[in-house]
Amino acid sequence: MKIINGGVCAPKGFTANGINVGIKPGQTRLDLGMIYSEVPASSAAVYTTNLVQGAPITVTREHLADGKAQAVIFNSGNANTCNADGIDIANTMCSLLADELNINADDVIVASTGVIGQRLNIAPIAAGIPALCKGLNKDGSDSAARAVMTTDTVKKEIAVEFKLAGTTCRVAGIAKGSGMIHPNMATMLGFITTDAAISPEMIKKALSADIEETFNMISVDGDTSTNDMVCILANGMAGNELITSENSDYDVFTKALREVTTYLARNMAKDGEGASKLIICTVSGAKDKKTAKTVAKSVICSNLLKCAIFGSDANWGRVLCAIGYSGADVDVTKIDVSFMSPAGEILVCKDGAGVDFSEEKAKEILDESEITILVSLGAGDAQATAYGCDLTYEYVNINGSYRS
Amino acid sequence: MKIINGGVCAPKGFTANGINVGIKPGQTRLDLGMIYSEVPASSAAVYTTNLVQGAPITVTREHLADGKAQAVIFNSGNANTCNADGIDIANTMCSLLADELNINADDVIVASTGVIGQRLNIAPIAAGIPALCKGLNKDGSDSAARAVMTTDTVKKEIAVEFKLAGTTCRVAGIAKGSGMIHPNMATMLGFITTDAAISPEMIKKALSADIEETFNMISVDGDTSTNDMVCILANGMAGNELITSENSDYDVFTKALREVTTYLARNMAKDGEGASKLIICTVSGAKDKKTAKTVAKSVICSNLLKCAIFGSDANWGRVLCAIGYSGADVDVTKIDVSFMSPAGEILVCKDGAGVDFSEEKAKEILDESEITILVSLGAGDAQATAYGCDLTYEYVNINGSYRS
Repeated sequence: MKIINGGVCAPKGFTANGINVGIKPGQTRLDLGMIYSEVPASSAAVYTTNLVQGAPITVTREHLADGKAQAVIFNSGNANTCNADGIDIANTMCSLLADELNINADDVIVASTGVIGQRLNIAPIAAGIPALCKGLNKDGSDSAARAVMTTDTVKKEIAVEFKLAGTTCRVAGIAKGSGMIHPNMATMLGFITTDAAISPEMIKKALSADIEETFNMISVDGDTSTNDMVCILANGMAGNELITSENSDYDVFTKALREVTTYLARNMAKDGEGASKLIICTVSGAKDKKTAKTVAKSVICSNLLKCAIFGSDANWGRVLCAIGYSGADVDVTKIDVSFMSPAGEILVCKDGAGVDFSEEKAKEILDESEITILVSLGAGDAQATAYGCDLTYEYVNINGSYRS
Repeated sequence: MKIINGGVCAPKGFTANGINVGIKPGQTRLDLGMIYSEVPASSAAVYTTNLVQGAPITVTREHLADGKAQAVIFNSGNANTCNADGIDIANTMCSLLADELNINADDVIVASTGVIGQRLNIAPIAAGIPALCKGLNKDGSDSAARAVMTTDTVKKEIAVEFKLAGTTCRVAGIAKGSGMIHPNMATMLGFITTDAAISPEMIKKALSADIEETFNMISVDGDTSTNDMVCILANGMAGNELITSENSDYDVFTKALREVTTYLARNMAKDGEGASKLIICTVSGAKDKKTAKTVAKSVICSNLLKCAIFGSDANWGRVLCAIGYSGADVDVTKIDVSFMSPAGEILVCKDGAGVDFSEEKAKEILDESEITILVSLGAGDAQATAYGCDLTYEYVNINGSYRS
């Protein structure tokens, strides 16, 4: 498996584009994007579990009932959620795009991100769709990835190449993250493309299993968004034998998918709103997978720990505290904790109690921009990893005036 | 019922004191405190549900097995948690105090708050106990309340007077809050005294019911501490007829208790670490009490909403979002939301969708220091109130360098 260029257009038959249409009046950055497959693709999506769901979620769910899609349209600047005619507007976005592309409206996936509760003005979108489609091209992943960004500071994009029984296939993705990131069953917007041939049933199974270990293991601020969605389009243009069961090709495909989603999820955490550091918590020695995941996620979600990491303070008591209230059944007297980064590794807690350590060395380790917290539970051999970020002045600054 | 002076010493037979012994070397603020009852008191406590529990919690639980206590000793600056000989040290604190007071060691309640994972040095405590006991006095509630503070900026202290069948009784409390505040079954340290005569069984029942509506309805940062505890001592010196059942005296007593605990809980939220504003969420129209509480607590716990309130931004979409992921079963299309403060009240969401409102007026309302968010669920007549605070630069500042 190797990483390649081209983002979501790297798989055969996919083009993409992103343009500015002024969703927020006067705003000049890219805010309308799309991805297109030359042929209809096996498709699946996972959605937020928030009871308040954006109108695009409702419409996409209907459109993917048949497991097929051919295009994705998305905007930033307005979430099209909690407003009176959101569903009509989401449907109109799909039908306008379908007309322009000469495809069926129910083969279009739609997604929106931005402010909740304000009416999404369809006019600039309708005016922009012809230019958006006209500009579709093989180098379009970059502009599409930028069009979905809100407070993200870097685009999230990756593509990998792998072989299925000798046939070269590709899987790729773009995503946005930043704030209101605490996925449950899905996460903020992620769009994945592949030219591997795989049935709608198997692509759904692969995606659902994958997000449990990737997007569902990140958190920026504990807030589960109303518009979370990750979707995948598999157009089969690589020419491999169609995957219809959990055979060895399926295993290779899911490994490639995992590489793409792990990269996107990890970078979503690293570029969390206001974040200055990526926090990775790797739990080992758990009695089962669920315990490992619960503990890892509780640690990266602790506001107190996030502040401590921001301040490079080796306050490991907050790690123990977060494990203790996680709800997981653990034996506190068997817990070991270490901090690790490119600057080294240091043991700070052994068997649930503090050990002497060099504060100077600990600070050096925590001054790096990617910090791993190693937790060993001493109860079995299950493990899990969760991704989060520090809590900074800038997070408060961004979210004290998000709507303005 | 009326509010009176004297704090935890207002009830008959109670004295208190707080002194500096230098738990953290070089620190000059009060850090060792106590409360004493002339006679043994019916006593009960509720504790953190965190699996990681401070040594003082373990020792106090043993000492209260018989429902009796006569003194409370507490220190700030070190939580005596996650260290090798914490239980021995907590026991020593009790026995040294008991010897000095000539009471039984198992009639002493012990509590510690501060850094987790560092050894608590018993030497300054042992050296200070004689002076601590010698200084016990009827005006000692103030110094005791200050001795338990960590990053609290104001002491939390209240006393009320009420009548039971013509006999004047009093109930009073002191507490500390500030950070790592997200109580579950109990909260940070709260010490309550009363001279009402009430049996151990009934005082336990009254306290357990009370905290579900008071301390368990506040959150500063979503982190449930390892050392949470609220205890109550009822010494019976008011001379009322002993309460042994849920009679009318019990009802009057629990109302007085509620006034004390609500005041303490509310002020704990208001003085949350770095907080500039108290956030109150009152949910009405819920189908049942549990739903109302779940929704209210989810709203005040949202980091995004907390930042919006800090910035006086009427971003009500974050209220809807927090309701949606709370896990409560609600009909989104029936939710109304208003913001209220001394500057007025403004409706921002009706039937789950935005309404036109004056941003200028909304900002004026949110610029106040106590903000109430009114949520109506349109599904029944149950209601609940939760207390939180805004998330500020100062919270990040405090918690980026807590140990130093």
